[in-house]
Amino acid sequence: MQRIEHRACFGGWQDVYRHRSEVLGCEMDFAVYLPPQAETGARLPVLYWLSGLTCSEQNFITKAGAQRHAAEHGIILVAPDTSPRGDDVADAGGYDLGKGAGFYVNATQQPWARHYRMHDYVAAELPALVEANFPASGARAISGHSMGGHGALTIALRNPGRYRSVSAFSPIVAPSQVPWGEKAFAAYLGEDREAWKQYDACALIAGASERLPLLVEQGGADEFLDTQLRPQLLQAACEAAGHPLQLRLRPGYDHSYYFIASFIGEHLAHHARAMT
Amino acid sequence: MQRIEHRACFGGWQDVYRHRSEVLGCEMDFAVYLPPQAETGARLPVLYWLSGLTCSEQNFITKAGAQRHAAEHGIILVAPDTSPRGDDVADAGGYDLGKGAGFYVNATQQPWARHYRMHDYVAAELPALVEANFPASGARAISGHSMGGHGALTIALRNPGRYRSVSAFSPIVAPSQVPWGEKAFAAYLGEDREAWKQYDACALIAGASERLPLLVEQGGADEFLDTQLRPQLLQAACEAAGHPLQLRLRPGYDHSYYFIASFIGEHLAHHARAMT
Repeated sequence: MQRIEHRACFGGWQDVYRHRSEVLGCEMDFAVYLPPQAETGARLPVLYWLSGLTCSEQNFITKAGAQRHAAEHGIILVAPDTSPRGDDVADAGGYDLGKGAGFYVNATQQPWARHYRMHDYVAAELPALVEANFPASGARAISGHSMGGHGALTIALRNPGRYRSVSAFSPIVAPSQVPWGEKAFAAYLGEDREAWKQYDACALIAGASERLPLLVEQGGADEFLDTQLRPQLLQAACEAAGHPLQLRLRPGYDHSYYFIASFIGEHLAHHARAMT
Repeated sequence: MQRIEHRACFGGWQDVYRHRSEVLGCEMDFAVYLPPQAETGARLPVLYWLSGLTCSEQNFITKAGAQRHAAEHGIILVAPDTSPRGDDVADAGGYDLGKGAGFYVNATQQPWARHYRMHDYVAAELPALVEANFPASGARAISGHSMGGHGALTIALRNPGRYRSVSAFSPIVAPSQVPWGEKAFAAYLGEDREAWKQYDACALIAGASERLPLLVEQGGADEFLDTQLRPQLLQAACEAAGHPLQLRLRPGYDHSYYFIASFIGEHLAHHARAMT
């Protein structure tokens, strides 16, 4: 593991590391924000942030303004890339499949199955690496945006007990029912839609063994609201299953990082309460 | 004037406008953040932010996290581009001269003199446009980063009475004495160094008719500290002239937006005190 960026930020350090991922079979970069409390010898909770389509580990750390709040609460922030990377990793040429669009699944279909195992990378390999190398307490939370909101919800629902809290901004809540998800799942998981359910938040809710409350932030002027996001499907699934959901609709806000920046402080406070 | 971006942000609106600049002889984009107070009918103070080399109006609005503080204090933020733009505008091909590197001067030399008049654009044309089209009270402050810190200091010093307060992050305080400034000033202003003094903060301090206090934030690990920035030259000039200066050295911080984001809140509080 090699540190490739190291920048003072709100009294702590915004770093980027490069490592060889065994799960993904390639080199990966991930961002770590170490708040000032990391230098006191304390063990700190960790919030994992999953980004959306086209993003790398850079978008969240440069645009969300989350470090200010992480410094206040004493939380480590970890932001991985959104897909495997490298010349020998399959790609599709578009923005919504292949590199930058891993959808946080373990692919079973060719040519994706070799490298596209982002579920296992985010849920297992990366936390193990983080907890071995940084002053992490073992308390974890997970959040993300759009495709990364889908990732946060499904990884939390699939792995009961692993996260103290989960939240999402503008998540794809029902990938099996919207164009982005249908395209990606058909490619990564094949045409059998039964296999898609294990990565669909709305489908997972019904069988969730843990009642981890979901906090979802959604802009009312989001350009993808009706076509790709459809938060009402999550609301209906949670109501049917009696699963706790706080869905906050923010009139006027769109799908951009201006929306995330406006409310990331409330999400960090939410995760801090759950983890400390 | 045409609005080309409009995004909800911290209860207000992060907009970008395009207009025809008579001073620059080209179309220009500039960013305006309207805090929530702008919808109450109140007239609000305006902070002008000048960005550094290679930047456009986008860098500050996507990376600094200033909107949060502007919303808190009720300040309009205006961030112009860093040079004239367009196919018929002269350029030099590098990052430190020509497009993206206007240095906030009125060029007198060819091929620059036709369009490169960023001093007059920032000090006069843009404020007139802003005050005619937005709920601006007429109270102005100015700040910026690196080349834009140089711009903020020199524009404030050259225009006594026009700004209530001035600050800078990592400014080029003595462009006549460092490589970035020597290259740009030789091109824009010619080889006669006497002409450079009117755009050199350290040279302007001696003749400043107004004792506007300077607030300067400087990272101690800034990669350009000793070669291009040299804040001790400003300190010496202020001491010699009895000009008030608050120079804050921040150990560990570099030249990036992580540094700006970490302290922009203190600068907005400073400007809010001066303007309200």
